[in-house]
Amino acid sequence: MDERPRTPWEHRMETPLTLAALLFLASYAVRVLGRGLPEAVRDACLAVTSAAWAVFALDFAIRWRHSGKGLSFVRRHWLDAVVVVLPLLRPLQIVRTYDAVRRRHEQPRLSLHARVATYAGMSATLLGFAAALAVYQVERGQPHATIRTFGDSVWWACSTLATVGYGDVVPVTPLGRLVAVALMAYGLALLGAITGSFSSWMFQVFRRDDEERPPEDFPGAS
Amino acid sequence: MDERPRTPWEHRMETPLTLAALLFLASYAVRVLGRGLPEAVRDACLAVTSAAWAVFALDFAIRWRHSGKGLSFVRRHWLDAVVVVLPLLRPLQIVRTYDAVRRRHEQPRLSLHARVATYAGMSATLLGFAAALAVYQVERGQPHATIRTFGDSVWWACSTLATVGYGDVVPVTPLGRLVAVALMAYGLALLGAITGSFSSWMFQVFRRDDEERPPEDFPGAS
Amino acid sequence: MDERPRTPWEHRMETPLTLAALLFLASYAVRVLGRGLPEAVRDACLAVTSAAWAVFALDFAIRWRHSGKGLSFVRRHWLDAVVVVLPLLRPLQIVRTYDAVRRRHEQPRLSLHARVATYAGMSATLLGFAAALAVYQVERGQPHATIRTFGDSVWWACSTLATVGYGDVVPVTPLGRLVAVALMAYGLALLGAITGSFSSWMFQVFRRDDEERPPEDFPGAS
Amino acid sequence: MDERPRTPWEHRMETPLTLAALLFLASYAVRVLGRGLPEAVRDACLAVTSAAWAVFALDFAIRWRHSGKGLSFVRRHWLDAVVVVLPLLRPLQIVRTYDAVRRRHEQPRLSLHARVATYAGMSATLLGFAAALAVYQVERGQPHATIRTFGDSVWWACSTLATVGYGDVVPVTPLGRLVAVALMAYGLALLGAITGSFSSWMFQVFRRDDEERPPEDFPGAS
Repeated sequence: MDERPRTPWEHRMETPLTLAALLFLASYAVRVLGRGLPEAVRDACLAVTSAAWAVFALDFAIRWRHSGKGLSFVRRHWLDAVVVVLPLLRPLQIVRTYDAVRRRHEQPRLSLHARVATYAGMSATLLGFAAALAVYQVERGQPHATIRTFGDSVWWACSTLATVGYGDVVPVTPLGRLVAVALMAYGLALLGAITGSFSSWMFQVFRRDDEERPPEDFPGAS
Repeated sequence: MDERPRTPWEHRMETPLTLAALLFLASYAVRVLGRGLPEAVRDACLAVTSAAWAVFALDFAIRWRHSGKGLSFVRRHWLDAVVVVLPLLRPLQIVRTYDAVRRRHEQPRLSLHARVATYAGMSATLLGFAAALAVYQVERGQPHATIRTFGDSVWWACSTLATVGYGDVVPVTPLGRLVAVALMAYGLALLGAITGSFSSWMFQVFRRDDEERPPEDFPGAS
Repeated sequence: MDERPRTPWEHRMETPLTLAALLFLASYAVRVLGRGLPEAVRDACLAVTSAAWAVFALDFAIRWRHSGKGLSFVRRHWLDAVVVVLPLLRPLQIVRTYDAVRRRHEQPRLSLHARVATYAGMSATLLGFAAALAVYQVERGQPHATIRTFGDSVWWACSTLATVGYGDVVPVTPLGRLVAVALMAYGLALLGAITGSFSSWMFQVFRRDDEERPPEDFPGAS
Repeated sequence: MDERPRTPWEHRMETPLTLAALLFLASYAVRVLGRGLPEAVRDACLAVTSAAWAVFALDFAIRWRHSGKGLSFVRRHWLDAVVVVLPLLRPLQIVRTYDAVRRRHEQPRLSLHARVATYAGMSATLLGFAAALAVYQVERGQPHATIRTFGDSVWWACSTLATVGYGDVVPVTPLGRLVAVALMAYGLALLGAITGSFSSWMFQVFRRDDEERPPEDFPGAS
């Protein structure tokens, strides 16, 4: 989805950045979920998380420097800037790389709808998982929390992404609610992607059908 | 919706598979809902359910064998593979057959929008029913369950499919929540189908109207 | 939205049917909401409701008779048949007449989007009101009901139509839930109409804009 | 989005009206949130709120007078009339001015999708904030209120705008619920804007892609 020609730097950094994104998510998950682990392991996780974040920040700083453009660079790459500040959005990097790798390996390109479905599915899974982790970390131990286990948190993330919103388990802390609002916004976008994709696919198939065999009876609204 | 030419095997198996799908759903429903029935009847239901599942698995295995394609067959027919593992998705087979039978009987083809509505309505009813059954089986007897009767379960399934999500009755077990997430995903797709279908139908009708009688006054955004 | 040429009978019955629909809704509302009214008034309301229903049934029967078509008439006019059985859907008659009257009076036709908005708004208001009445009648007096006042019922109907579904007040009786499911289905259709209408309107306006002044900078996905 | 040529009066009033809208929202917010402030400050806020409202009413009256058109003016500018009665909708004025200023300063026009996103984002933020203020003012101090802090109110507004509707905090007073219904309606429109915008953007990008590199393998429905 990135139409600009890539600089050599961006080319070279693709693999390290994706690795850093995977390590970031994995070490964050281990630190949040592995409460029973020895302190040393948890400290190592924190170190990996911080190092991965430093890679993101450095990459952004170097690209900024090399562009020689000042603040207009930040305005053009605001999404990257946001991701430096909120690294839990990094998983989107993985989706981007997945697409680039498919292209490089000259694999048969996926059809339009399959690609939309892949993007939507992968980003929903990764962001939902990241949000569930963040909310679980913030909420657990709160006196009136309804999200008590990581299972509750995943369940809450799914019902939020689908804009169903049962409300049986919800974040109660300000920080948890902030993550929730971001996830809701993403859920709206996801709904837009699914709605647009599904309906357009359906109509393509049906239109092809109708061209081959015109219906004898078109009752209209009847 | 299936564009590939059908093999003779697929042609011959259509009726048995649909029958198996109907028997699977019916015997599963009797077993889940008929708790007061004699043990022999419930055992018979279990046998029918298993036999129907065996038919699905056998059909898939034979088609795989005959294709002579190895794993790429599974990748191409991943939906069929998923259905063998999760046979509660089988009801979709009934929808497919319904369409095929309409064609064979040379009945007047339904219009585009009527067909979308038929697909969406039938699959929503069958999957909603299957999900309500599965969740009811998993949740009943749980200590803190809010879904206590099959009526509760159907009510929950409807509010989930419509992405309304009241949250007065919700699954509380991990397995019940897993079924719920699948139903939510289907609800999103259903929303996409209804949204796309309804709006496109509406615009077709209105556009025809407007071609016949151009409006004297087009206030635009006013 | 009705493309068939109207028979003289349909022409003549338009005013009586609309009046009957209004009287049906009004008398039903008075009977449900006016619990403190003298018994005679409430009996009169019941009589009016029944009479209005008889008018609908008679109209359908006469049109069926005159068509000389047997069951295929019912299949073609299934929406009318459903409305005879579930007269609370009658308010839609009022929307249809409103449009016909506008045409007859040679008023400037509304633009496409204004008409979609009018249909969606009027039918949502009328069906939401009818559903709130029906659910209130069914739920009040139930031991564990959360819908205790008519205000609660209207609030519930609004949150259902918007597919928000807070779940603070929900129907608990099987009949109330049946009405709720119908309202949810209508809410999905409403969402489809609003989504389709709004987005297409937005794009028309923006496209016109873009034709007049081509953007100097099209950052694409950036 | 306003296609009519602007009168000199409208041109001259643009800045004062936007200032008044900003002052209205700010003074209302200070009065609602600043309960610990000295009485004099809160009275000053009330005065500013009233003065801003008077500016809106005067502007509408003068434009009506100058148009020399009687009631048809109100019908054509019904949105302006509604805003005079419900001044909390004024923030939309700010969105309109923002667009006009961008044009005047000859800034590079935003692309279609960026503009939709800007409109949707700004109006959702401003209306959500105004609704959260109004609901908080109405609900606080109510005996059974679940919205107890302004944070709760903002959280409720976000979950309503996204049509998620957890229902953990909801308005319980008739006035609060009236504001909620208005916000739900806006949430539906927002969903329509996001859905339409997102899906159309996605398809533009993908279509351009597909024109450049036709897929070797289009599995269709597979």
